[in-house]
Amino acid sequence: MSVVAQLRDALSDIVDTTPEALEAARADASGHRSDGPPLAVVHARTVADVQATMRIATATKTPVVVRGAGTGLAGGANAGAGEIVLSTARMTRILEILPDDLLAVVEPGILNADLNAALASHGVWWAPDPASRAISTVGGNIATGAGGLLCAKYGVVRDAVLGVDLVLADGRLLRLGHRTVKGVTGLDLTSLVIGSEGTLGVIVGATLKLRRTVEGEICTLTASFPSVREAAVASACVTASGVQPAIMELMDGESLAAVHALLDLPAPAPGTAQLTIQTDGASAAADADRIAEVLRRAGGDVDVTHDLDEGERLLRIRRSMHAAMASLGTTLIEDVSVPRSALPAMFDEIARIEQAYGIRIPTVAHAGDGNLHPNFIVDGPEVPERIWEAAGELFRGALRLGGTLTGEHGVGTLKSRWLADELGDDQWELQRQIVRAFDPLGILNPGKVFARA
Amino acid sequence: MSVVAQLRDALSDIVDTTPEALEAARADASGHRSDGPPLAVVHARTVADVQATMRIATATKTPVVVRGAGTGLAGGANAGAGEIVLSTARMTRILEILPDDLLAVVEPGILNADLNAALASHGVWWAPDPASRAISTVGGNIATGAGGLLCAKYGVVRDAVLGVDLVLADGRLLRLGHRTVKGVTGLDLTSLVIGSEGTLGVIVGATLKLRRTVEGEICTLTASFPSVREAAVASACVTASGVQPAIMELMDGESLAAVHALLDLPAPAPGTAQLTIQTDGASAAADADRIAEVLRRAGGDVDVTHDLDEGERLLRIRRSMHAAMASLGTTLIEDVSVPRSALPAMFDEIARIEQAYGIRIPTVAHAGDGNLHPNFIVDGPEVPERIWEAAGELFRGALRLGGTLTGEHGVGTLKSRWLADELGDDQWELQRQIVRAFDPLGILNPGKVFARA
Repeated sequence: MSVVAQLRDALSDIVDTTPEALEAARADASGHRSDGPPLAVVHARTVADVQATMRIATATKTPVVVRGAGTGLAGGANAGAGEIVLSTARMTRILEILPDDLLAVVEPGILNADLNAALASHGVWWAPDPASRAISTVGGNIATGAGGLLCAKYGVVRDAVLGVDLVLADGRLLRLGHRTVKGVTGLDLTSLVIGSEGTLGVIVGATLKLRRTVEGEICTLTASFPSVREAAVASACVTASGVQPAIMELMDGESLAAVHALLDLPAPAPGTAQLTIQTDGASAAADADRIAEVLRRAGGDVDVTHDLDEGERLLRIRRSMHAAMASLGTTLIEDVSVPRSALPAMFDEIARIEQAYGIRIPTVAHAGDGNLHPNFIVDGPEVPERIWEAAGELFRGALRLGGTLTGEHGVGTLKSRWLADELGDDQWELQRQIVRAFDPLGILNPGKVFARA
Repeated sequence: MSVVAQLRDALSDIVDTTPEALEAARADASGHRSDGPPLAVVHARTVADVQATMRIATATKTPVVVRGAGTGLAGGANAGAGEIVLSTARMTRILEILPDDLLAVVEPGILNADLNAALASHGVWWAPDPASRAISTVGGNIATGAGGLLCAKYGVVRDAVLGVDLVLADGRLLRLGHRTVKGVTGLDLTSLVIGSEGTLGVIVGATLKLRRTVEGEICTLTASFPSVREAAVASACVTASGVQPAIMELMDGESLAAVHALLDLPAPAPGTAQLTIQTDGASAAADADRIAEVLRRAGGDVDVTHDLDEGERLLRIRRSMHAAMASLGTTLIEDVSVPRSALPAMFDEIARIEQAYGIRIPTVAHAGDGNLHPNFIVDGPEVPERIWEAAGELFRGALRLGGTLTGEHGVGTLKSRWLADELGDDQWELQRQIVRAFDPLGILNPGKVFARA
């Protein structure tokens, strides 16, 4: 019996082989696609569905690509020929909300935004905040380690997940982690699963660490600078001042112009770069005043608003970046991260590469935490080798500054060629061996993360 | 050539075989000892010393026990016959302090207190705060995942470590983790090493995530209750109120009486239990007032002081617990952790076990995070089987309440018999396989953590 027939036999109507479903599973939000359609998409409703799928995959040695909402930006969930797609997007239940213990237990398919909508009435929230939060799943968020805008103040994903339920390649279910603030029983496999991009198992549940709703107002600042370097220096000054904004986003001239064009806003003066900053909590207004002072001394043209809607409108400009880039062509979005004080030096590096390669690299940055998203725009579906070379230089520049290849998007297919450069061969090999302990047959997301160029 | 001769040949005067050194390495602060003296203690000064030691250990298949200051409470650093002790206590340098990037790079032997003394003038601090912080090393803190008093507000160890330099069993050096706020390159091996208790490699350096010094005053509250259950309920009410204290410690009647006796303080009324709470930051005074109100409504006799020295004096009572217990006999310190709202139920469980076994179990708790330290006091060096049984019941009670075997002390030798009960056999076996990927010969801290009863 074929793999698809076995899946149908076990799971009947949740096995989807319509051409639309197979085609959709070939690509994520990066715009890059696999080389061909997968075998089938299994729309799991329960942990048992996931286990049944994995048992068939193991028995038949068939590769499995786990997918949430497909909003990834590194090609990690792109499924190709001969592969089973295991979607957890329909597993959307919230199983527990315990505000006094600041924890919630959820299924992986719930969207970040839906989760926070449900948590709000309990006076709590879950901090991870990728730009795609309205349409991305908690499971995908955990699988990639996707961060977002709030990380400097409110932490990264590993700070916000206490436990993970994981179905192994052979279908066994493991419950990793704790429901307690503290817990050091054995090795921290929960952290190992966070950011593992579908290579260790299928996340079928998560115990999330919540925060209490932040009281007080939200203030939003924008500051314009004649050049991106001046904006980057100003953001470093804000960080050094010791005032902690909730959000501090930077857009360079190219990015700002592209988004303004997309949103039909008046064109900014050429080269104008912008910082968009939010403060929150009891000291929001005082913090905004101190930050405004720092920005003005750094040469910024500063506006401050205490109006929430106006603040959201201003942030929307930043959040429209990905759409603006996609409207220009196929984008290769980089995701380097550097220590915060190195942000100006990283922008110098980008300018150098632009000059050397005769290209533009529109760049936005989560300036509060040192994470940059430089965008390479190419015509057609293939990334030319010369652009890969420029991307390689960008990455090596980040490494020289004490940085990393990927701050939040993950390695997927688009960055696997550089993984060993950052980890070193010894660590790369050790990580591979750890993956083998979870997945001896190598059926979980093969060709991703640990594939070598 | 014997193992010791090989060590001397490679490392000369840092190889210590004096009877005092060998005897000291048999025990940690738990008071439990190994069955005999180890071969030698190597006092490593450099990463190269560690690598040389591990190469000899691998070549001769000799077990290695890594030690810091020996303040562990689970026997994890106790070295026995035929083993090399590798001490990193002399590797005490601070290599970098970068306040703008909120990070420091240190060697493992530096004491927590010395580190924070050095950081203070830069306006930053490192949050992990075990009760032993004045005498315990950062490396040991990371190796055990030791928490402390501040975890509910300021996080656990994995929230405070960005990277670890690790020497593998065969002497190779790996640099794990990042210097950036965000980083998701491959698997998070840094988190895997945190709390791994010397089973994965030797921590020879760490990149620490710092916090800015908390501004504002510190307020200290004490509240007395007629019984421990009332104190536990009151602490749960504080947590549920949404006010976040920096510290919230609970002492039961037995503990309070024992410490008062040790410190020559007037004896409290029999059964009196006490909460000691500190608030800090901009809203310290207002938070203290709100907490005092909650405690009074819960039936507490409440005192509040804004005086720092008086606050330290009050906390000293809590910090003297371990000395008070040690003065009564050999202690078996348990370390269960439960969701915060389950604290009163866990005290009921302890009372039930006291009754069933006809023993007293003096208990203190980090009530702010749900971590309890029940103490079994025994005569002589051996723990009777009946006490192990009572400890087993305690642990199963914690599990039933959604809790864990160890919140911060680690598994070591004293808790390994229950590890598989919490992890399940499948996860226990998987963790063993991961350890093997790091240490194929099984020479790193054998017989600890993953030893089965």
